[in-house]
Amino acid sequence: MAAKTQPGNFFEDFRVGQKLVHATPRTVTEGDVALYTALYGSRFAVSSSSPFAMSLGFPRAPVDDILAFHLVFGKTVADISLNAIANLGYAGGRFGAPLYPGDTVRATSDVLGVRQNKDGKTGVVYVRSTGTNQRGEMVVDYCRWVMVRKRDESIAAPEAVVPELPEAVDAKDLLVPAGLHTKGYDTALAGSDQFWDDYEIGERIDHVDAMTIEESDHMLATRLYQNTAKVHFNQHTEKDGRFGRRIVYGGVIISLARALSFNGLANAFKLLAINGGRHVAPSFAGDTIYAWSEVIDKMPLAGRTGLGALRLRTVAAKDRSCHDFPGKDAEGRYDPAVVLDFDYVAALPRRG
Amino acid sequence: MAAKTQPGNFFEDFRVGQKLVHATPRTVTEGDVALYTALYGSRFAVSSSSPFAMSLGFPRAPVDDILAFHLVFGKTVADISLNAIANLGYAGGRFGAPLYPGDTVRATSDVLGVRQNKDGKTGVVYVRSTGTNQRGEMVVDYCRWVMVRKRDESIAAPEAVVPELPEAVDAKDLLVPAGLHTKGYDTALAGSDQFWDDYEIGERIDHVDAMTIEESDHMLATRLYQNTAKVHFNQHTEKDGRFGRRIVYGGVIISLARALSFNGLANAFKLLAINGGRHVAPSFAGDTIYAWSEVIDKMPLAGRTGLGALRLRTVAAKDRSCHDFPGKDAEGRYDPAVVLDFDYVAALPRRG
Amino acid sequence: MAAKTQPGNFFEDFRVGQKLVHATPRTVTEGDVALYTALYGSRFAVSSSSPFAMSLGFPRAPVDDILAFHLVFGKTVADISLNAIANLGYAGGRFGAPLYPGDTVRATSDVLGVRQNKDGKTGVVYVRSTGTNQRGEMVVDYCRWVMVRKRDESIAAPEAVVPELPEAVDAKDLLVPAGLHTKGYDTALAGSDQFWDDYEIGERIDHVDAMTIEESDHMLATRLYQNTAKVHFNQHTEKDGRFGRRIVYGGVIISLARALSFNGLANAFKLLAINGGRHVAPSFAGDTIYAWSEVIDKMPLAGRTGLGALRLRTVAAKDRSCHDFPGKDAEGRYDPAVVLDFDYVAALPRRG
Repeated sequence: MAAKTQPGNFFEDFRVGQKLVHATPRTVTEGDVALYTALYGSRFAVSSSSPFAMSLGFPRAPVDDILAFHLVFGKTVADISLNAIANLGYAGGRFGAPLYPGDTVRATSDVLGVRQNKDGKTGVVYVRSTGTNQRGEMVVDYCRWVMVRKRDESIAAPEAVVPELPEAVDAKDLLVPAGLHTKGYDTALAGSDQFWDDYEIGERIDHVDAMTIEESDHMLATRLYQNTAKVHFNQHTEKDGRFGRRIVYGGVIISLARALSFNGLANAFKLLAINGGRHVAPSFAGDTIYAWSEVIDKMPLAGRTGLGALRLRTVAAKDRSCHDFPGKDAEGRYDPAVVLDFDYVAALPRRG
Repeated sequence: MAAKTQPGNFFEDFRVGQKLVHATPRTVTEGDVALYTALYGSRFAVSSSSPFAMSLGFPRAPVDDILAFHLVFGKTVADISLNAIANLGYAGGRFGAPLYPGDTVRATSDVLGVRQNKDGKTGVVYVRSTGTNQRGEMVVDYCRWVMVRKRDESIAAPEAVVPELPEAVDAKDLLVPAGLHTKGYDTALAGSDQFWDDYEIGERIDHVDAMTIEESDHMLATRLYQNTAKVHFNQHTEKDGRFGRRIVYGGVIISLARALSFNGLANAFKLLAINGGRHVAPSFAGDTIYAWSEVIDKMPLAGRTGLGALRLRTVAAKDRSCHDFPGKDAEGRYDPAVVLDFDYVAALPRRG
Repeated sequence: MAAKTQPGNFFEDFRVGQKLVHATPRTVTEGDVALYTALYGSRFAVSSSSPFAMSLGFPRAPVDDILAFHLVFGKTVADISLNAIANLGYAGGRFGAPLYPGDTVRATSDVLGVRQNKDGKTGVVYVRSTGTNQRGEMVVDYCRWVMVRKRDESIAAPEAVVPELPEAVDAKDLLVPAGLHTKGYDTALAGSDQFWDDYEIGERIDHVDAMTIEESDHMLATRLYQNTAKVHFNQHTEKDGRFGRRIVYGGVIISLARALSFNGLANAFKLLAINGGRHVAPSFAGDTIYAWSEVIDKMPLAGRTGLGALRLRTVAAKDRSCHDFPGKDAEGRYDPAVVLDFDYVAALPRRG
């Protein structure tokens, strides 16, 4: 009689070159889109209005890129991070085919590296996770590394393999959906007349607005993504845990920060890449999330005269206004209010 | 480097005759309908069942009329009431083309009047806001007046223009969707055998049921409408505000009162007009909302033998049963439990 | 002027042989599916992915069977249990035509029995409730008995009629959707390689995971089902009630237990019957629900070589891990943590 429940993988279960097929493919629907709006209040016109999306060459309103990311991430949890102690980082994330209601997304992960920690109890696992649609087209892929427990500490350490991960996705590797154009881009409907041309490297934007998190909200979101990590859901055990309460899935903070960024980045309508992301501190129900962004780089998009890309860093802080841009100090220590430091690339229309 | 964030309009930014195009058109979906049901528990058959709706001549189940109103209202907030101190009233609201999943609604507002207050710091702005579908058909329009802060108190007061607003929409101006009929209206499925004929002017109905509001519920609703007014969302600042907590968007109370009114008005299946509405007192998470209604007037609908209209006043109260119809006393002072006094017109099937 | 509000039926209103047509038919949508996922985090592939469902012969992803049950149950509340003191039990429940987004479900109930209690104030009513789709096909039907108040205690007791209810649905009466097959069943996507063959009678499975309930979550769910029972929604009266707080609709616990059971029963993809269910104790916001299951019986399905049925008992407990399978002791007394004891039949693919 075989064990029926899934204990998740431990450090010694991962092998470089291994491919994991994650369970529970997911047909995305307009119901997911409505819930995403209700959970974060996002106002980007392209995922709110099909006619607006069609005016840019999309066949209909695509699903918010971050929702696509969460759906893929959620599937990986049972296999990759059920026994994880920490989600250490992301790198080299790219968005490919836009995801539309009716599409079905599934996820696989390739193990890129493993490195046992000196304590002999844990190790770091590096994976590239890939979400594909029903036609096998890549929707999003990204590298992630997590610290995972060993099941059996007596097992010898594997040969350490640490993959080389890019600091940022190269501009030439960015994927812009075919047919996308900005002729007739309606700035009134989009909510801003600030084009790619109007942003400057080094410019900082306080997104002003803020959102308080409730237990129901973050649990609804995380269940919607079929993410099963226990720390988000089980108050009975978490009351005796490290923080005495449930921890908000870090992706909820990414979504809130992105939704808040509408006020200042309303025309950053399409995400192209995730260069990196750090969940600097945990968030909990009752926290109020603010955000600000900095323009790290400006990149024209080859062969796309109407579009430009901004490399952005969006920082989220809790229970603290971001009018003075809380971040890292000279020694690299974060302001204690900072919960997220997210480095990504977005496309905006160019002037003229 | 232009300012990237939107500060909203201040009193001196409004000019009579000005037309504002609001951002973020919204494609309405079955996801919105499901969320609306989950948020309020509405049981009106016409927006719950497509076959029922089709039996009355609708092409499919229309979206709840109040949801259409909220979607339009939500879009106006960033331009009209971000710097508002108070939402003073509504008048002359009419429902036009029913809104269906798949339709895209957008909103504009015309400034009808401005009148600076004596304090020199604020003024009243009167607008007519109009929601239209993707064919340009009016879905809902209504007048609203709000008290708005001045940015710069030294700016001279504009010439005062106060529009004449109707006390109630005239019966001849009510718009009944083409093709609507009540042949074969199924009272068992509708949940009531009480027709238009069975209601009397002056009749009062206690809706009996009640609903307690949670923070997640009102925030999910308000974000679904992409309404960004800060007082609903930011506990970090509201804890130091006038009430020490987040204020529930008044539209949530309208929706709750309408859903509760099913028990007594199950056949009032289509809203035709909003004559006026007063948010008498704020509501907060933890409040339990009750409601009662009074029949103010009965109006046949010209050329529509199977349909009649009721002018209704629905009053919502918090933490207090409405068995004794709490309202205004002889001096016009409201019972302290009253939170909403809503005056509107609904269509019901006529007997025979 | 007739009474406009519905007081619900009292014990003396029920007559054996009576048929009740319940109000508010409901068109089920992808919005309902998304909400169901967000409320419970269910990961069964067949209701998550249309391509997966189609690989088994479904035309698209069917709605979760328990959601279909809740939608039907919700409709019956206003007529059957508005004046109920207790929901005493279920028996003989069968699932028929799968429910798909776009289908419209309606509900009727046949009164099977009535038996006044000795106190003269209450009685037990037995009904068979049937949910049908827009083609009149049975989606789910089940017997239920409830204890209901008398309106007028002076009315004489009716002749007692107590229907014979099956202890379990007979295997030959189970309905398997036509065309269902398991050729090409993908265990990686389903999340388990444990087939019907791998389960043994008497086997117990701890589902490991757990979920904490919030007020918003259970109210959103119960409103989604248009279930209007007051005890779930009105904190203003419940604060003075038996428990001092709102009671979670028992169906929410069934859904949570079923979603948790994925971890151990991932291939139990289709429910065929509900043999019985007992809400052993009430649940409240703040409770954390765990679950375990026992295999009661194994049944081949006549003429279906690729499918087998398991009779399962799933027990849910609150604020207590189920690693030691809390249930009844030798005297038949439940462990005080147990809130649900649910007896049902599910189909799984067979090996080979």
